[in-house]
Parts: sequence; C-alpha cells; structure tokens
Amino acid sequence: MSEGATGNQKLEVCFTPGSYPIYKNDDAIVVIIDILRATSAICAAFEYGAEKIIPVATVEEAAEYHKKGFLVGAERNGVQLNGFDFGNSPYHYMTERIKGQTIVLTTTNGTQAIEASKDAYMVVIGSFLNITALCDWLYRQNRPVLLLCSGWKDRFNLEDAMYAGAVVNELSKYENFYDMGDSALAAKYLYQTGFKNPVRFLHNSSHKERLARLGLKDDVKYCLQVDKTRVIPVLRDGALVKM
Amino acid sequence: MSEGATGNQKLEVCFTPGSYPIYKNDDAIVVIIDILRATSAICAAFEYGAEKIIPVATVEEAAEYHKKGFLVGAERNGVQLNGFDFGNSPYHYMTERIKGQTIVLTTTNGTQAIEASKDAYMVVIGSFLNITALCDWLYRQNRPVLLLCSGWKDRFNLEDAMYAGAVVNELSKYENFYDMGDSALAAKYLYQTGFKNPVRFLHNSSHKERLARLGLKDDVKYCLQVDKTRVIPVLRDGALVKM
Repeated sequence: MSEGATGNQKLEVCFTPGSYPIYKNDDAIVVIIDILRATSAICAAFEYGAEKIIPVATVEEAAEYHKKGFLVGAERNGVQLNGFDFGNSPYHYMTERIKGQTIVLTTTNGTQAIEASKDAYMVVIGSFLNITALCDWLYRQNRPVLLLCSGWKDRFNLEDAMYAGAVVNELSKYENFYDMGDSALAAKYLYQTGFKNPVRFLHNSSHKERLARLGLKDDVKYCLQVDKTRVIPVLRDGALVKM
Repeated sequence: MSEGATGNQKLEVCFTPGSYPIYKNDDAIVVIIDILRATSAICAAFEYGAEKIIPVATVEEAAEYHKKGFLVGAERNGVQLNGFDFGNSPYHYMTERIKGQTIVLTTTNGTQAIEASKDAYMVVIGSFLNITALCDWLYRQNRPVLLLCSGWKDRFNLEDAMYAGAVVNELSKYENFYDMGDSALAAKYLYQTGFKNPVRFLHNSSHKERLARLGLKDDVKYCLQVDKTRVIPVLRDGALVKM
C-alpha cells in the first residue's frame, strides 16, 4: 500500500464502452482491456521498443497521420486495412521498424474504449502480457479502479471479461481495500472457471471463432500468455507512453 | 420442436436494459428477467389469481391508475412507495385481494426493461418460479430468444445473469437449435458455478446485500425457488396476462 492508504477503494468492471457513462468514476484509474487483440498488441509494441502510440477512433484520422509519414496500425473487423503498416496482431509489432517510433493505432473496439474514457483520472492498458506488473502497480495506488472491457461493437465479450476477472481475483486478495460491484464478482467467477485452460474456456466464444476463421489462432495463444512484459502503457496528453 | 423447425436459432443474453438497442432482434421472443424481485413477484401474482398486470415506467403513471381505483404496486430502491397497495415483494401478492384483479406495477428496474422491449415480437416474464414451464415453452417456439436482464439502474447484476444462464443451460441441451453469443456463454458459466448453492453464490452481490439491509432475506430465498408455478406471463396490448 502507498502511504496515506485509506482502504475500501471501489473496484468495478464495465463490460462494454457503451456502458461506460453508467460506471464512470472521475477518481478512478481506468484499465482498458481488449485482449484479442488491441491491448495485447499495444503491450507487445512497447516491449519491442515503440516510443509512443497515438490511439485514434477513426480510420480517417489514421489516414491523415499516415500521409504525414507516421507508422500506422489500422484494423477493422479483425482485418488489417489496406494501405497501412500494421494491423491488430501483436506479431506485427515485433519488428525493428518500431524501435523508438511513434505509432498511430485505430482498431474496431480497443481504441474506442480509450476514446470513451480519455477524460478519466488516469487511463492505462491491461493485457495478460503485463498482468502482474499492472496488478502490483494498481494495488499500490490506493485509488478506485474501473476495468473497462472493449467488448465487440458494444457487446459483451468473454475474453475481456475473463481478463477483468483475473485482475479482480488478484486485487481482491487485499480484501480490505476493494469494494466490488456485481460485474466484478461475475468477472472473477468467470476467471476462476476459465483460468486453468483459457483456450478451452474461450472455445465457442465469438471473437475466438472470428480470429480462427481469419487464421489467427497463434495470435489468440500469444495474447493469453501472462507476464511477457513489465510495461504499463499509460495515456498522457492523448498518447500512450511507457509509465 | 414445433413443426417447421429450422434449427440454429439465436439465443442471446443482454445484461442491462441500456444495452437492449445493441441486442435488439425483431424476430426474437424477449424474456424479461428481474429475479430480485419484479419478475418473481409478477409470477407469484398470477399464480395467486391476478387477472392482468399493467407495467408502467413511472410513479406518476402508477399514481394516475391508483386515483382511478386500480390496485397498484410501486417500488423504488427496494422499498414500497407510500400510498400504494403493494411493493415489489412476491409475498405482497399472496393475498385474496388480487384474485381476478387488474394490478398496475412500477418498479426500479423490471418495468423499465419491459418498457425498453415492448415492441419486440413477444415479451414474456421469466423467474426461477416458472423456469421449467418457460424453458419447455421457449424450446417449442423455434424462434430466436433474447434474455433481457433488468440489472440495477443499468448496471450488470449477478442474480439476473445467473438466471439467464439457467435458461441458456437448459436450452443449450438442444444444441442444434441455438446459436449463442458470448454473454449467453458467460451467463451459462455463471449459472454452472452458482446453481448448487445460489444463496452462497449471490453472497456479496450488491442487490442481495441491499435486500438484506432492508430485512428482505425471506424474499431472496423465495425468489430463488424453482417451479412454484407453470404460469408464463406474456405482454399483450401493453398488459401482462397469463399465456
């Protein structure tokens, strides 16, 4: 605990960006979650040396940056858009090309969640790839935490909820400090059901099926790995940087 | 299966009325779920002889009906409103007074969900009290089904999700006939985690705590009982009647 800890901080989960106004909490640290694949790709990009990632909500904004010479990742419906440098796969960012670079990124869901919450006290990026570093840090902040799942076009999705549950499960070990709502309890139950075999747990989930159809099973496996990095990306002045 | 069954019907769960526009499906039967306590109270009222229940969204509308001499149930934030005949407890409706009567009802969440979905192909009322009758009937319709949880002021709640999962669990036994989204899978997992001891599962859930604070533990126990009635309330011309 940081000094001055008062305990009993609120820990909530919001399952879709559309529900964000209901859960919005000006004092909270918002954790953006888009496991398949935006927030996993963002963590991978920083681990592989990216300097800064500018999230943008629309393809038009992304195209403007591209014209100006920025490296740009652009994905819609699981597919990299033509004319851009990268899509939404973590593997796209495991390249020397991104070292020290500023990258612009627009995705179907993840960058929309960042847009929705950009005025929060603080916005950070969560994925299984940085889960332990993130939970250690969240625990030390003694602040309310809102875990914001990106979902799929404002529908609930299973992998984001399971990840939110993993964070809740970890933080709720310090039970004096967190006051949880029902969505956090549900996410924790889902994580506890699924964590021993997440690939099996997500079998039949809509997004995993979508990615399998697109030949992206390796992406799914990669994104479900824990602790590949200690990086915690944080939003500062509209851009993600390493904390 | 009814004749003409084509199979592969969509079975979806919407966790809050606010997300209904995202999940809306004009062909679907919508099942309204507000386990603690509106839809449980509605099922109990019909079992105890009510003829018709008119759901209204606002207290003002309810008061208008009351002036005209109708029996009126009105609840906000778990508490029966002054000047009305009943609140939201199933026990309020276990009385000779309601036999053959039309009752008007407004509640914090349940009647809001009915209002949101009133233009659907068909709207029916689900609770643990009528779960087997409802599932038997849903299975025979060969139609898409949308399970609409009332939640708590547009937040996810655990008991409604668990009930939705109970229905998904039952209907997914006929796996050729139902195509499920992630929220339905999650609900089913939650049900499978919780069904052996739902009171324990719901321990710490926000609404159960709210009701316990209000001295309504018996209500919770009653609402978690299965198959107390074969009644399926259905919305016809703005009022709920027995199917």
